[in-house]
Amino acid sequence: MNYRSVIKVLGFLLLVTSACLVLPALISLAYGESDWPYYLATTGIGVLLGGGTLLVLRDAPDLRVREGFAVVAFGWLFVGILGALPFWFSGQIPSFTDAAFESISGFTTTGSSILSDIESRSHATLFWRAMTHWLGGMGIVLLALAILPLLGVGGMQLFRAEVPGPVAERLTPRIRETAKILWMVYMLLTALETVALMFAGMGLFDAVCHSFATMATGGFSNHNQSVGGYGTPAMEWVIIVFMFLAGANFTLHFLALKGKYWVYWRDEEFKFYGVIILICTGLVMAVLLPLHYYPHWSEALRLALFQVVSIITTTGFGTADYLLWPPLAHAIFLVLMAVGGCAGSTGGGIKVMRVLILLKHAKLELRKMLHPRGVFTLWFNNRAISRNLQTNVLGFFLLFMMVYVGGVLILTLGGRDLLTAVGATAATLGNIGPGLGEVGPASNYGDMLDWEKWLLMFFMITGRLELFTVLVLFLPGAWRKS
Amino acid sequence: MNYRSVIKVLGFLLLVTSACLVLPALISLAYGESDWPYYLATTGIGVLLGGGTLLVLRDAPDLRVREGFAVVAFGWLFVGILGALPFWFSGQIPSFTDAAFESISGFTTTGSSILSDIESRSHATLFWRAMTHWLGGMGIVLLALAILPLLGVGGMQLFRAEVPGPVAERLTPRIRETAKILWMVYMLLTALETVALMFAGMGLFDAVCHSFATMATGGFSNHNQSVGGYGTPAMEWVIIVFMFLAGANFTLHFLALKGKYWVYWRDEEFKFYGVIILICTGLVMAVLLPLHYYPHWSEALRLALFQVVSIITTTGFGTADYLLWPPLAHAIFLVLMAVGGCAGSTGGGIKVMRVLILLKHAKLELRKMLHPRGVFTLWFNNRAISRNLQTNVLGFFLLFMMVYVGGVLILTLGGRDLLTAVGATAATLGNIGPGLGEVGPASNYGDMLDWEKWLLMFFMITGRLELFTVLVLFLPGAWRKS
Repeated sequence: MNYRSVIKVLGFLLLVTSACLVLPALISLAYGESDWPYYLATTGIGVLLGGGTLLVLRDAPDLRVREGFAVVAFGWLFVGILGALPFWFSGQIPSFTDAAFESISGFTTTGSSILSDIESRSHATLFWRAMTHWLGGMGIVLLALAILPLLGVGGMQLFRAEVPGPVAERLTPRIRETAKILWMVYMLLTALETVALMFAGMGLFDAVCHSFATMATGGFSNHNQSVGGYGTPAMEWVIIVFMFLAGANFTLHFLALKGKYWVYWRDEEFKFYGVIILICTGLVMAVLLPLHYYPHWSEALRLALFQVVSIITTTGFGTADYLLWPPLAHAIFLVLMAVGGCAGSTGGGIKVMRVLILLKHAKLELRKMLHPRGVFTLWFNNRAISRNLQTNVLGFFLLFMMVYVGGVLILTLGGRDLLTAVGATAATLGNIGPGLGEVGPASNYGDMLDWEKWLLMFFMITGRLELFTVLVLFLPGAWRKS
Repeated sequence: MNYRSVIKVLGFLLLVTSACLVLPALISLAYGESDWPYYLATTGIGVLLGGGTLLVLRDAPDLRVREGFAVVAFGWLFVGILGALPFWFSGQIPSFTDAAFESISGFTTTGSSILSDIESRSHATLFWRAMTHWLGGMGIVLLALAILPLLGVGGMQLFRAEVPGPVAERLTPRIRETAKILWMVYMLLTALETVALMFAGMGLFDAVCHSFATMATGGFSNHNQSVGGYGTPAMEWVIIVFMFLAGANFTLHFLALKGKYWVYWRDEEFKFYGVIILICTGLVMAVLLPLHYYPHWSEALRLALFQVVSIITTTGFGTADYLLWPPLAHAIFLVLMAVGGCAGSTGGGIKVMRVLILLKHAKLELRKMLHPRGVFTLWFNNRAISRNLQTNVLGFFLLFMMVYVGGVLILTLGGRDLLTAVGATAATLGNIGPGLGEVGPASNYGDMLDWEKWLLMFFMITGRLELFTVLVLFLPGAWRKS
């Protein structure tokens, strides 16, 4: 590994984040609040650190594939910690651990919060929380569709052929081209949602923040009871639609915007994503309706659909306290937390595409039992999936289960009850936000111990970066000098 | 599929079971109880059905590999139902569903019971319960080491080279030879345990029944509070040792008895099995000791070790109500329920060997990230594991998780709470016995609904027969006439 190249890119990332911090400072000034100096101070720190690094290491060689892992993993960590500083400096979040938790939860688009009274926070705080989501979401689109395919991370290789440009050993040229296209889509959808939310009656500030949080499948809301706290049904429907779009592959949106709108119906992953949502919503409604919690079936439908879409896309917005719903809802949500959004979306989790490949693989192995000498091919979107890619996707699933089980064991070893441990691990590793038990939608992560919060931050980053990227750094071979 | 061959073998299995039913009838007579006619009546039914089938189909062709799946799956079901009849006829278990549950739970060596007051049952009932375990255990040893390797079921192929005899397309000759050797080991260990338990102060009848239940890793006890209800520490230690042996590969015992006692230390699976038990016992003790539930650390050690061994071997005996233990114990037990015993043992679950291959595979995929062009080999016991076998083991894991998740969803759809649904599915699919929540060690499965009991019986058989064997029958191709 060439440390100098890695550090140079990390410096660049800090510089970009510093520039972004000027925006919340302006918001603070505009609303006549007093916390703008803390944002500008953080900008100063970021510029000094990032700019200084770039100056010192300006002649470091370009990145190679191998260093990509370290850049991605540490990039999210360092940017997250820089982003935590204004929360901490301003006293809006007095504990450093809590500030880091909120910021890393933001940048990883998780949306787990330690704040109990969100509404009393300054506008700058609320805006920066939403903006960490949005920036993190941008990073993820870039990561999933341009960087990870080159790194060969489970299943993401499938995009290698989709994205224009040659497969290069050096990352930079390819990334730039892909990034431009996809960010355009991302910004367009964010703008559309903001307008739609305002049409539905939401104020500009809230509309922007919620659009940021939706498109990144983040889930921070400006209100204590999330979207359910003040949203009208119309706003909830707008958010359902845009969560759904944010959980789908951005390449499809790009192609659709170019006029090829039929790509959605040709994409196996997208269709399966739709089917899962329909079936799960139906099942949740089937157990909700007989209980007469909600006066009208249309309300039950809206709430069930909202929660299903919010969880499978790993957004984590809430319109109801689903812990009060029947156990089937909890079981479904736990499964959906693991499934996550589509590959190439801003959603987290295992990803629908991988789940589909796993299901197909299981069926294939069953069929092999009947025809032991047969040769079987796994097809996905009319393309044969290589044996190598299959075992890679299976490896991803194994690592996911291992980290999940490990997380539950560590949290219960610390004394947490099983449901909270399962919920907190699933919700952070899958980048959802609210979990089950003591960290359910009606409460928050504020009461967890500091070491638990750092553990969950590790899960957020690991889950967000498709596991391999972070876990590979635990192999001694990753650190060998080249 | 050649139905006539399948039915012929099923007839033979019924005939063998009928013969075994004479033994509980003799027990009933010896104790001067009145339920012997029901056992003899069932023998009559079995002889008529089985013998008749054999007579009619005496010229049906020998079995081929393909029919093996149907024989194994339906064999366990039919034998289980025949074994349920005396419970039902005698009125000891008045509901047919309950009787079938108890019998299938016995033959699959699960040990989940619907009985609330075990001690008031007749001696014949208790003996037949234990004997269903023992016969089922015999069947499993045969299945795992002689039949499944030929069927190519995930990971079991590794035994193909271990067991003497040529790989034949026709099953019979090979099976006979392997069976003789392994049943000898099985009977010898059962006899040893009976003697050891009697030395520890247990009566002959109880000693035989508990040895049957231990060696089969079944878990039915003659007492309401399982082994904890009346066992002395010495008896508990004896049972710990024999559960441990029953959860290990019987091929190792066979080789050790032939003087090659070092095979244990050369076998990766056995070593890993030991390490898991040590670590988990240590962790459980670490959370138990500070609570001072038990007056002396040696008692906490014995109870923790007993429960860990009882669950990883999928026996399900209890000496303490572990639901009262801290959450870490529940988390560990849920994981161990899935892990299960060693391949080639009478234990259920995923099997230690498969878990080890999965862990190695995950590490391999991580290492591939660093060396995308490298060629990696997965080694197990100094033997290279083929890519084919790896994906097969991964497929097994996927199917296990799918059936598990499916079970939890169905049970919660029916209204069960999440913990009970998770516990009941894990405990039956893994052939453990007691679960968590409402089906924990201090309660039983008697209060579940009839449809739930049949679902759990399906899980018992599916889990017991290494999933593939049963699930393959759901493929339309399995039923094609040949």
